[in-house]
Amino acid sequence: MAMEPQLTPLIESLPSTVPFVGPETLERQRNRPFRARLGANENGFGPAPSVIAAMRDAAPEVWKYCDPENFDLKAALAAHLAVTPRNIVVGEGVDTLLGLTVRQYVREGTPVVTSLGAYPTFNFHVAGFGGRLVTVPYRNDREDLDALLDAVIREKAPLVYFSNPDNPMGTWHTASEISAFIAALPETTLLILDEAYGETAPASALPAIDVSRPNVLRMRTFSKAYGLAGMRCGYAIGGERQITAFDKIRNHFGMNRMVQIAALAALADQPYLNAVVARIIAGRDRIAAIAARNGLAAIPSATNFVTIDCGRDGTYAASVLSGLIERDIFVRKPMAPVLDRCIRVSVGLDEELGLFEEKLTETLAALK
Amino acid sequence: MAMEPQLTPLIESLPSTVPFVGPETLERQRNRPFRARLGANENGFGPAPSVIAAMRDAAPEVWKYCDPENFDLKAALAAHLAVTPRNIVVGEGVDTLLGLTVRQYVREGTPVVTSLGAYPTFNFHVAGFGGRLVTVPYRNDREDLDALLDAVIREKAPLVYFSNPDNPMGTWHTASEISAFIAALPETTLLILDEAYGETAPASALPAIDVSRPNVLRMRTFSKAYGLAGMRCGYAIGGERQITAFDKIRNHFGMNRMVQIAALAALADQPYLNAVVARIIAGRDRIAAIAARNGLAAIPSATNFVTIDCGRDGTYAASVLSGLIERDIFVRKPMAPVLDRCIRVSVGLDEELGLFEEKLTETLAALK
Repeated sequence: MAMEPQLTPLIESLPSTVPFVGPETLERQRNRPFRARLGANENGFGPAPSVIAAMRDAAPEVWKYCDPENFDLKAALAAHLAVTPRNIVVGEGVDTLLGLTVRQYVREGTPVVTSLGAYPTFNFHVAGFGGRLVTVPYRNDREDLDALLDAVIREKAPLVYFSNPDNPMGTWHTASEISAFIAALPETTLLILDEAYGETAPASALPAIDVSRPNVLRMRTFSKAYGLAGMRCGYAIGGERQITAFDKIRNHFGMNRMVQIAALAALADQPYLNAVVARIIAGRDRIAAIAARNGLAAIPSATNFVTIDCGRDGTYAASVLSGLIERDIFVRKPMAPVLDRCIRVSVGLDEELGLFEEKLTETLAALK
Repeated sequence: MAMEPQLTPLIESLPSTVPFVGPETLERQRNRPFRARLGANENGFGPAPSVIAAMRDAAPEVWKYCDPENFDLKAALAAHLAVTPRNIVVGEGVDTLLGLTVRQYVREGTPVVTSLGAYPTFNFHVAGFGGRLVTVPYRNDREDLDALLDAVIREKAPLVYFSNPDNPMGTWHTASEISAFIAALPETTLLILDEAYGETAPASALPAIDVSRPNVLRMRTFSKAYGLAGMRCGYAIGGERQITAFDKIRNHFGMNRMVQIAALAALADQPYLNAVVARIIAGRDRIAAIAARNGLAAIPSATNFVTIDCGRDGTYAASVLSGLIERDIFVRKPMAPVLDRCIRVSVGLDEELGLFEEKLTETLAALK
C-alpha cells in the first residue's frame, strides 16, 4: 500500500457511517419517490407564511456572512425565555450543539450516560470524540430517570443526555420529575436536556428555566414545531460560563444568514406556531385512531410523531416497516430491544395520513 | 467556587475568542451602519438571479432536512470537475471542512505548518484540537512554498495548509509552482490547498485536479465568486479514501437544504459567474487605481480583494484602517509583521468603491 497521511488512531477506529439513512437515499435505492414523508419527524405543515416571506426577502442578501454573534436572534430568544443573551448559544441545529458539547466535556474513555435506543446522533458524537457510552434501558417505553441517575453516579460520568419529550418513543416526564432528577444530579455532571419537541409538549412537561444551574444545558430547535429543519437552527440555554465556553470552539461564522432572519420571523409569529401545534396534536390523535382501527396500540406522545406498538417482536415490526416503505410510505422505527417492536410515524398532511392508513391496512393484511 | 462540570483540560486552556470580528459587531459598537461593506471578502454583486429564484422557490420546502449524501450537488460538481462523486465531500462552508480535516489528522501536540499571518480560522481549528502551529513568514508578500516545505520536513508535520490565491495578500503561485510543491511533499503529509478564490484567479494558477494523490485536499466554496457566503457551502476534492473518512465525523444532516439547491443553480449558471468574475477583475483594477491616485501601491491580486501597501509600518496602516472605519467604510487588514503595513479591500459595488476612494483620501490627509 502506498504511504498516505495517517488519521489519528481515534478517527481511524471510527466507521464511515451515518446515524440514520435519509429518505432521499431510500428513494434513490427504490428508484421511486415516497408518496408520504412521515419518517424524519419533520413538520410538513411547513414554516409560517411570514417566515417564507422573510426568507424570500432575504435571498438577495445572502452574499453577506452571518452575524457571528447571532445578536438579534439571541436578544429575541432571551426576551422570549426571560433569560439574558449570555445564557443562550445559537448553532447550526441541535446536532451541531450536541457535537460541540460533547467535545467540551468528553475525552477518550470518558463515560457518557444515555438511554439504550435514544438519539443516535448524540451517540455518533460521543463515539466521535472517543467517549464511552454507558446505556440504560427504557422502562415502560419511557427514559428511566432513576436508572440514568444511578449510572451517572456509578460511573462518575461528567455528561448525561436525555430528551423530554422523548425521541423515538414520544413519551415524556413531568416538570417535577425532571426537576427532581436535576436536584439529585451531581454538580459536576452536565445534563443535556434535549427539548427539541418542547413546543408540542404540554406545559406541565417543561420545568421553569433556571440558568443559575451550571450543570443543565437545555436544547431547543427551529426544526420541529417551527418547520425549519432544512435551515439548521438550534439553541442551548444554560449557565453563563457554560454558554460562553462554546465560543472557544464553535464555528463563529458558521450560521446561515437566512436562518438568522427566518428564526427571528418564526419566533415573532406565535399565532402560527400555536395553530401548527394544534394541527400536530390533531394529527397525533388521528395516527392513534388509525393504529386502533388496525388493532394496534399507539403510545401516548407529546412530540410531532406517534410511536405505534406493532404488538409482536422486532422482526415483525421490521416487516411492517418494510411493507410501508414498499408501499411508498416513509416511516422509521426504533432499533433497540423492546422498543424495536414499534414503528414511528411523524404527523403529516391529511392526505399523507390517509395514505398511511390505507397502506398500513394493506401491509398488515399481507403479513397475516 | 461552586462545583461545576469540568471542561476537558484542552478546552479549558482555550480562550473564548472569535477568529475575526464581524461588521455587525462593529456597527453595534459604533452605533451606526457602514456605508460600504468591503472588509470580509464577500461578493456584493450577489448570487445570480437564477440562484435567487431557486432559493425563493425552495423556501416553502425547508421543513425537510437536507439529503445527507448531497447526492445531486456532488454529482454536478463531479461532472463540472471531471472527477467522481466519491472524490468530493460537501460541507457547511470551507471553515467547517477545515475543522473536520484538522480533527482527522491532529491530536494534542501534532505539528501543523502554515504561514504566519495566513487564515486565522484554520489556526483556530488547529488550536481547538490541541495542534502545535508551526509558522513560516511570507516572502515578498507571497506564501513561501520552500519554507513551508522545509518546515514540514523538519517537523515531520502530517498537515500543511496554504491558500492559492492567498488570503490576506491576494498573491498567487503558478500551477507549476504548486505542482512542484506537491511533488516534493512527503507522502504522509496532507496538503490542504485552499482555493476559495480559485474562480477569480487566472487559469494558470490552478493545477489540474489529480485525485490519485492521497495527500492533497483542495477546498473550494460557493461563498466568494458565487456570492453565497451567508448560505454556507464549500467542498473538498481529494482521494477517495481521504474523502470517505469525512463520513466518520461530519454532521450528516448538517447541510442547509436551500443551499444544496442554490449551489446546484449557481453551478448551472456559469454565464453569470463569468460576468461576475469580469466585474471583480474590473473592481480590482479600480481599487489599484484608487491606491495609486492616493500615492499607495496595490499588491497584484488574483482574489476578490486587493491588499494595499500603506507604505509605512503596521501602526500607520492601523491608523488608516481606523480612519476608514470611522468614516463608515468597513475594511480589514493583515495582522502579522510586515504584512501588517497593508489594508485589505474587497471588491464591491461601484458606489462603494467611490465612497472608499473619497474616504481614503480624507483619511490620508487627516493623518498627515
